[in-house]
Amino acid sequence: MQQDRQDVTYPGGVARLYVEAPLAPGASLMLDEGQSHYLAHVLRAKPGQRVRLFNGADGEWSATIEAIAKKGVTLEVEGLTRPQAGVPDLWLLLAPVKKTPLDYIVQKATELGVARIQPVITRRTIVERVNTDRMKANAIEAAEQSGRLGVPAIAEPAPLERVLAGWDTGRAIVFCDEAGDARPLAEAVREREAASWALLTGPEGGFDPVERAHLRSLSCVIPVTLGPRIMRADTAALAAIAVWQSVRGDWR
Amino acid sequence: MQQDRQDVTYPGGVARLYVEAPLAPGASLMLDEGQSHYLAHVLRAKPGQRVRLFNGADGEWSATIEAIAKKGVTLEVEGLTRPQAGVPDLWLLLAPVKKTPLDYIVQKATELGVARIQPVITRRTIVERVNTDRMKANAIEAAEQSGRLGVPAIAEPAPLERVLAGWDTGRAIVFCDEAGDARPLAEAVREREAASWALLTGPEGGFDPVERAHLRSLSCVIPVTLGPRIMRADTAALAAIAVWQSVRGDWR
Repeated sequence: MQQDRQDVTYPGGVARLYVEAPLAPGASLMLDEGQSHYLAHVLRAKPGQRVRLFNGADGEWSATIEAIAKKGVTLEVEGLTRPQAGVPDLWLLLAPVKKTPLDYIVQKATELGVARIQPVITRRTIVERVNTDRMKANAIEAAEQSGRLGVPAIAEPAPLERVLAGWDTGRAIVFCDEAGDARPLAEAVREREAASWALLTGPEGGFDPVERAHLRSLSCVIPVTLGPRIMRADTAALAAIAVWQSVRGDWR
Repeated sequence: MQQDRQDVTYPGGVARLYVEAPLAPGASLMLDEGQSHYLAHVLRAKPGQRVRLFNGADGEWSATIEAIAKKGVTLEVEGLTRPQAGVPDLWLLLAPVKKTPLDYIVQKATELGVARIQPVITRRTIVERVNTDRMKANAIEAAEQSGRLGVPAIAEPAPLERVLAGWDTGRAIVFCDEAGDARPLAEAVREREAASWALLTGPEGGFDPVERAHLRSLSCVIPVTLGPRIMRADTAALAAIAVWQSVRGDWR
């Protein structure tokens, strides 16, 4: 198995890296500082070994390490290993939570397969600053490890009201409403037809009554419940994605 | 709202504590050291204020703080606030993972509503020691915050083979098989009738081929898939519980 021995591996399998450069046979590219360090010093890769690359558009490619130099690792793209494939067109509208649960949500939402994460500032959002660079880094790492061929888009935070005001109403919003009188998520999503979908989960303190009433007045909003227990914001977000994927996504 | 002001609260609402003592009107009890410290010094509770108590059998009760002394906080049980209600009879058979993801799984599995967590040692389990006291503490804390009226049972770790050898075959095992040729979890669970249920998720490195073949040979085992992406062990466990709750549990 000479070929296998040439792959750069980590406990999850062959090293996969997300890059922004176009990928095509013979293309040459240099990794950025962080990825170069990771390959050369964490995974101890050597010239001649192979990794996999993806960029969200051109599929997954095998690439050979040409050189490991101080300014960065240079790779030459070889053959296509998987054709491009996307995830379902599911957005997550997320009231930001504290740093650790937010890291966790971004990582898990990427693995579970969302296309875009939009932080929304609600009336009861306590977190003042959302580090979208950190969110992007978490999303890239999770995409690399989960076998995804693209990274979810991370939108800049915006007030919920403004996001709703500019909303394309063809995209249904599944509103995880902790108030408890709504229909179960799976049932509500199964019975509704929509061109595309978003999930909306609240901050630690839930939604404000005025906000809830406004959401419930919109025809593109589907209020749903996730059962009789009280969940933390991060648990609710992940549970909602998992159930949606089973009913409308690519877990069918 | 005099009554509200007398409640001991934390950001999630009225303080709820899990105790082992029987709960009935007029009963008096003393909290253990950890809970006494939490009430007196973290939440800064005062005598005369109220908390909620549950013990997994007698429902949820309101109780008044009688005294805060060095040896512990004494409470007197007053009235029933919620009758006893359980969670679905769902077990989680979990190949143990590292400390942080294991903390997370126990916390989230409690919120999502499992009745029992059984750590199973598989052939590729790397973690050598499972701290069940830590798991129990995480389960209690999550039960208190999630509004549950009981705490999931935490079983002592056992080799998967031994657990399977003593298995009651009336309890179906939903085997989250990352190999990918199995049926989607929601569909497989919807079409199978079973008296009771368990979910089985693997360690970081997945199941060994011999182990997989053995599992697949058992009539009570239902191999399922959670979609096309590779998930970390903790993500898979939580996603499986959420989807099961939607199909067979109390999220319907």
